[in-house]
Amino acid sequence: MLEDRIRHRDLRRRVMPAEAAQAYIRDGMTIGVSGFTKAGDAKAVLQALVDRVRFTGERLSIQLFSGASLGETDGVLARNGIVSKRLPYQSDSALRAGINAGTVGYLDQHLSHTAEQLRSGFLGELDLAIIEAAAITEDGWIVPTTSVGNSPVFVEQARHVIVEVNENIPELYEGLHDIYLPAARPNRMPIPITNVRDRIGTTAIPCNPDKVVAVVPSTLQDTPSNVGPADADTERMAGLILDFFEHEVRMGRLPAHLAPLQSGVGSVSNAVFSGLARSNFHNLEIYTEVMQDSAFELLDAGKVSFASTCSFTLSERMQAHVNRSIAAYRDRVVLRPQEISNHPEVVRRLGVIAINAALEMDIYGNVNSTHVGGTQMMNGIGGSGDFARNAGLTIFVSKSVAKGGRISSVVPFVPHVDHTEHDVDVLVTEQGLADLRGLTPRERAKTIISNLAHPSYRDSLLDYLKRASARGGQTPHLLEEALRWHQRYAETGDMRQVSLAHV
Amino acid sequence: MLEDRIRHRDLRRRVMPAEAAQAYIRDGMTIGVSGFTKAGDAKAVLQALVDRVRFTGERLSIQLFSGASLGETDGVLARNGIVSKRLPYQSDSALRAGINAGTVGYLDQHLSHTAEQLRSGFLGELDLAIIEAAAITEDGWIVPTTSVGNSPVFVEQARHVIVEVNENIPELYEGLHDIYLPAARPNRMPIPITNVRDRIGTTAIPCNPDKVVAVVPSTLQDTPSNVGPADADTERMAGLILDFFEHEVRMGRLPAHLAPLQSGVGSVSNAVFSGLARSNFHNLEIYTEVMQDSAFELLDAGKVSFASTCSFTLSERMQAHVNRSIAAYRDRVVLRPQEISNHPEVVRRLGVIAINAALEMDIYGNVNSTHVGGTQMMNGIGGSGDFARNAGLTIFVSKSVAKGGRISSVVPFVPHVDHTEHDVDVLVTEQGLADLRGLTPRERAKTIISNLAHPSYRDSLLDYLKRASARGGQTPHLLEEALRWHQRYAETGDMRQVSLAHV
Repeated sequence: MLEDRIRHRDLRRRVMPAEAAQAYIRDGMTIGVSGFTKAGDAKAVLQALVDRVRFTGERLSIQLFSGASLGETDGVLARNGIVSKRLPYQSDSALRAGINAGTVGYLDQHLSHTAEQLRSGFLGELDLAIIEAAAITEDGWIVPTTSVGNSPVFVEQARHVIVEVNENIPELYEGLHDIYLPAARPNRMPIPITNVRDRIGTTAIPCNPDKVVAVVPSTLQDTPSNVGPADADTERMAGLILDFFEHEVRMGRLPAHLAPLQSGVGSVSNAVFSGLARSNFHNLEIYTEVMQDSAFELLDAGKVSFASTCSFTLSERMQAHVNRSIAAYRDRVVLRPQEISNHPEVVRRLGVIAINAALEMDIYGNVNSTHVGGTQMMNGIGGSGDFARNAGLTIFVSKSVAKGGRISSVVPFVPHVDHTEHDVDVLVTEQGLADLRGLTPRERAKTIISNLAHPSYRDSLLDYLKRASARGGQTPHLLEEALRWHQRYAETGDMRQVSLAHV
Repeated sequence: MLEDRIRHRDLRRRVMPAEAAQAYIRDGMTIGVSGFTKAGDAKAVLQALVDRVRFTGERLSIQLFSGASLGETDGVLARNGIVSKRLPYQSDSALRAGINAGTVGYLDQHLSHTAEQLRSGFLGELDLAIIEAAAITEDGWIVPTTSVGNSPVFVEQARHVIVEVNENIPELYEGLHDIYLPAARPNRMPIPITNVRDRIGTTAIPCNPDKVVAVVPSTLQDTPSNVGPADADTERMAGLILDFFEHEVRMGRLPAHLAPLQSGVGSVSNAVFSGLARSNFHNLEIYTEVMQDSAFELLDAGKVSFASTCSFTLSERMQAHVNRSIAAYRDRVVLRPQEISNHPEVVRRLGVIAINAALEMDIYGNVNSTHVGGTQMMNGIGGSGDFARNAGLTIFVSKSVAKGGRISSVVPFVPHVDHTEHDVDVLVTEQGLADLRGLTPRERAKTIISNLAHPSYRDSLLDYLKRASARGGQTPHLLEEALRWHQRYAETGDMRQVSLAHV
């Protein structure tokens, strides 16, 4: 019963269909929407807005802020030209096309930073927050669904709020969330999380019910995750990481139950977690921004004692399983705002092990996570920078080649840097693992080339390093050749011809 | 009286001259030495070691870890080939030459990270810590001098300790320091600093006196700071920053007394602080890693109510003044370990305003702080990365040109990235100020070129941007030209000819 989910009596009177609620959206508005890596995004009102624009032919554009990527909504909005500015993360092909064409302004931000920037005022005023909810409490507070994202700060900062009450979310989601908003400075206190399972806030998002202009019933499901299955390469990378963990435990540098694990979205992360499910590790903990299928498999296998996350980004099958079994997860999982799941303070205190995907890496350990060929945005940096600089152990993974071997992921010089040499501890490809800790740039280069590069590129990289080193420097380079691999790919569709250029 | 400064009776029996104590140093040792930006470094024993090597012709090399740059010792050691590996920061010309020649291995680290890396074990064992002290307490604990640096973690981790008791440091330095060591994970608690003036630790460094193998009397002075005086350009940059602060206060985005200020070593920082001394701002606070002369001038002018720092890096004149007046500063200054002065947790909580120097910046806001021409190490990243990613407001400054106009500090593409586009809020040259917050890369590029670039380079940069933008992308570039400015400078000694290449 919808009424049971709207426990604030006055707000029951503001129930209306999405088709009516979308009328609150006007041209030029700045809107904050719930949703983090396709989970828990408010879907009904924005899709009704698209219908209006399609039907009326009205020219309308909004600045759209979110937690991270939305599900299908990002694409639908982009294809209809409705978004003029977007932050802090996206992963939709139509939106990406607009971004790279320059028709959509895109701010690619550390995911823990957006809340601070909103609070500090230079992103302007937030006209409206649209938040998906499992319920509204007696006080008008909002119980989120499968993610928390930036919803608490959006509700705090927005002039008006629309709540989409999703009746397909089990009511037992209430109690799963832990909502904590750091106070404005200078009155900010330490974030009192010293253990992944610590609960420090409330189970619903504080909301002044007077700000709520509409409550919209919805039954729309989260867009399922489409992360590909493990293949031989991702299995090999996962195996290398697990061997490395075992080695670090033997060396006394990691405890037997490791440290809280973070992993970004992707098939390697899934494979690492699947590998852990079959390993001898136990009593593991997760402190992450997104739980994929494999994180729940680890919970089901009894390997993980507790998981803290900002979102559930699951396949359709796993969505059904989690919703069915939510009662069994309630005392082992907590959903937090992204400002807290990704907060440098907590990440550093807990000594998180961070595993994230790289697009490419250079021979000195700089990582490009965002820009294909240095210019075209793929998705965004996401939370990788929140974790990488502050983690106890920072790992980036990538297959050694792409496009059937025509692209090497290990290059002389990355054409865009998201993670600097100062922040990267360990790099992994299916060729091997490079532990860069304590190594100088020249030592790193030798290790990266011999352990990580695909054999078809190794000699070219060694040749580059040798000729660059002859010129000296802390970080030897041949500036006239540094980006030639990428130029060549852009011109010929294959990086491999590069090595012939100086035969 | 030396005896008064060595209050632990047994340790009085371990007093010996530096010439004797240096015998504890053996080839291949890893040594942690006190000292941070030339302040409070243990000078006597390492210089006695140099005498031994010179006299005996012995081949000896050590791995030398410090807080940051040492005074003259770095150069003396380097010129005698004694250092095989060095971390985490340096600023000496002879050492720099060895680093760039590849004869000294150099790990350029975030200054808050070294302590974590030592604790986690992969930097190996620390054989010896050499710490300059104002006194040794009854319990054998060590009272530091003009910096704290990494001394607490060195004393904690080292097998043996040598203390250099410096009789030229006023005894009233005792009480000035606040020593706090985060517990090993997973038992780590929040760092309970919520105000720059909070004292959370002890006034001396905990030390097991059994580890102390020698106590060495010393009267060697800190190498004075040689930061140049303000010139018209640095005055102009300081003025731009002060105008910006006033603007932000008017906009309600900064409180009237601003936020705790951090500034790196350098003449611009000095000029900003000198400008603040003449401004209408008052009740300012400092939360920084290094206090230069101007920070004490601000204290003397009554503009700063409290300053937290890791070191005093002062001119000879100001050293004398501070030592003479130390009683007057004791309730307004605290010296902390660099792990705490630079800790992401505290920097983010306090919303520090971070002002650091850039070598160069690109049109999208990426900053190179370390590598001249992308390959030659200048000094190191220092604490800039600890502050930049976590500060409430991150500012980088650089003159728009160098070498008499032959180098532009605003370039199409920086050949080394220390601070990514995600971390930089505001850039300043003597030409103007660029507030990048909330801007997309294309918007940033226009602002940076028009506000920051020297007029003699502006058209070339605009031309680059225009032709790059025609190819599209979130961050448009012409890879074949991106590094050409730096190549041209390397070949001809002037970047300006670049613009002719495509006329």
